[in-house]
Amino acid sequence: MRAAYIERLGPPEVIRWGELPDPAPGPGEVLVDVRATVVDPVDTFVRSGVFRTPLTFPFVIGRDLVGVVARAARGFAAGEAVWCDSLGHGGRQGPTAERAAVPADRLYRLPAGVCPQDAVAVLHPAATAHLALFAHGGLRPGETVLVGGAGGNVGGALVEFAARAGARVLATAAPRDHARVRSLGAAEAVDYRAPGLAERLAALAPEGVDVLVDTSGHNDLRAAVALLARRGRIVLMSGARDEPVLPAGPLYMKDGSVRGFVISHATVAELAGAAQAVNERLAAGGLRPRAVEYHPMSEAALLHDRMERGELHGRRAVLRP
Amino acid sequence: MRAAYIERLGPPEVIRWGELPDPAPGPGEVLVDVRATVVDPVDTFVRSGVFRTPLTFPFVIGRDLVGVVARAARGFAAGEAVWCDSLGHGGRQGPTAERAAVPADRLYRLPAGVCPQDAVAVLHPAATAHLALFAHGGLRPGETVLVGGAGGNVGGALVEFAARAGARVLATAAPRDHARVRSLGAAEAVDYRAPGLAERLAALAPEGVDVLVDTSGHNDLRAAVALLARRGRIVLMSGARDEPVLPAGPLYMKDGSVRGFVISHATVAELAGAAQAVNERLAAGGLRPRAVEYHPMSEAALLHDRMERGELHGRRAVLRP
Repeated sequence: MRAAYIERLGPPEVIRWGELPDPAPGPGEVLVDVRATVVDPVDTFVRSGVFRTPLTFPFVIGRDLVGVVARAARGFAAGEAVWCDSLGHGGRQGPTAERAAVPADRLYRLPAGVCPQDAVAVLHPAATAHLALFAHGGLRPGETVLVGGAGGNVGGALVEFAARAGARVLATAAPRDHARVRSLGAAEAVDYRAPGLAERLAALAPEGVDVLVDTSGHNDLRAAVALLARRGRIVLMSGARDEPVLPAGPLYMKDGSVRGFVISHATVAELAGAAQAVNERLAAGGLRPRAVEYHPMSEAALLHDRMERGELHGRRAVLRP
Repeated sequence: MRAAYIERLGPPEVIRWGELPDPAPGPGEVLVDVRATVVDPVDTFVRSGVFRTPLTFPFVIGRDLVGVVARAARGFAAGEAVWCDSLGHGGRQGPTAERAAVPADRLYRLPAGVCPQDAVAVLHPAATAHLALFAHGGLRPGETVLVGGAGGNVGGALVEFAARAGARVLATAAPRDHARVRSLGAAEAVDYRAPGLAERLAALAPEGVDVLVDTSGHNDLRAAVALLARRGRIVLMSGARDEPVLPAGPLYMKDGSVRGFVISHATVAELAGAAQAVNERLAAGGLRPRAVEYHPMSEAALLHDRMERGELHGRRAVLRP
């Protein structure tokens, strides 16, 4: 099969496109014909070695796939449309290839009528958003959620999941995204550059915010703690080099917490829980991708380079064999 | 009855010692003859208004009591030895008086053979320690716990509860407290002023620390996050004016969290859970107080003044009618 792979960690140029032996599914694995994958930021961290994870060379890059079961196995029938969002780390080969062997407990059926290319673009941000709200944020119906950076892929999914879980959602986004953010379920959309933003948000949540997720990478914990309700949770998931000040007293006097996570550490059970929720939204016509561009897998190196230059900001690059 | 009370918020001098009407127990309350109470730091914050909580004047000060049921009610028999650690805030009158009306769901039986004055000295720090480890830290058997400031009242209880829950306990304390800390169950005791402390602790916990609680009020989150295991929890409970830097990337790349709390926000169920664990240790002869001094309740104002001057550091001042 043809695959995009690396033989050592390094810059985008280490990515090769060429022939590798077909994967031999182990016990518990399902062989899948890949229809589409996508370039995630984390793919560049694995390739460069910034994110350390067990891998063997030649290593097929990438993380997510939508595909079709090539051979019946482990309860999956040949020809079933399926997806996975946890390849390419923890010792597993990635999906940027014509075929992939996927552990059955990480493989989920794609609902009927869903476009594989659309789906592959949203799997990773949507699963990330679900884990943030529920596995880590502990969101309950009736609570108030503040989504910072709601215009992005993760941000939009946060709004969509939180609103459908019965939460009241406040969102910050650029004004051009306000209509979209409201259509996804936000009760309020506020310009993230508005003067007096903190005061406006405080006025919109007089009882405080129960779950606060900022996708922008700017973790202003002073402002976040001030907005927090008693037992409120700040979910931290971006801004790797950020070193915000944490006001200790105001946090603990509210029984508040700051909870960090990366999807790479999610358990099989957590991923399956998120996948079920993602599938429910996909089946209902939700989780629409925003800006998507399509490329052949052979251009993976070019796309890693563009991502690292910031040229894919807010866009999803879908790759097909 | 005679009581130590205030008629307005203010400095220690606002505390009066004199006659007030006996409390009239409402439905669900039990009338208790107070045998002993104790001066907690939080009592001074309620009296001064630093900790804002609903109260009515004249307001009887204090939080904890050990006493004897004065009149059978709500399943308690007259003459039973009982205790409570959640009076004096949230609209409830305090226990620095000859009698107190205590909600039955906040009243616990004192195990047979336990000295009331010894018990009253440890209730608050022990319940705080239990909530830190379990309700907020989510400690599980087999995990590694780091207790900073293990020589204090809360610190000792943290070591005792964590070790008995099947955790491996690392403790920092002054060398004079090492023998005590080890006798309470710490696997390792390290001088908190030792050069290269962070490196020593890292060497003692090569897999990382699962629950980290520092009672000293110095919240060095950079060092704490560096020591954390994957999904490790830092419990924040002191250092009200502390504004430490939180390294965002290192925290979230470990799925780490920082969880603040104050015992004043504990639910009735959480307090009852801690009370059960406190009673088990008291019945087994554990949770021994360190330095205790005894005073009549009429000296409450003097003791608030001494506490605010730092003269009671590490000592518990028990008050009797």
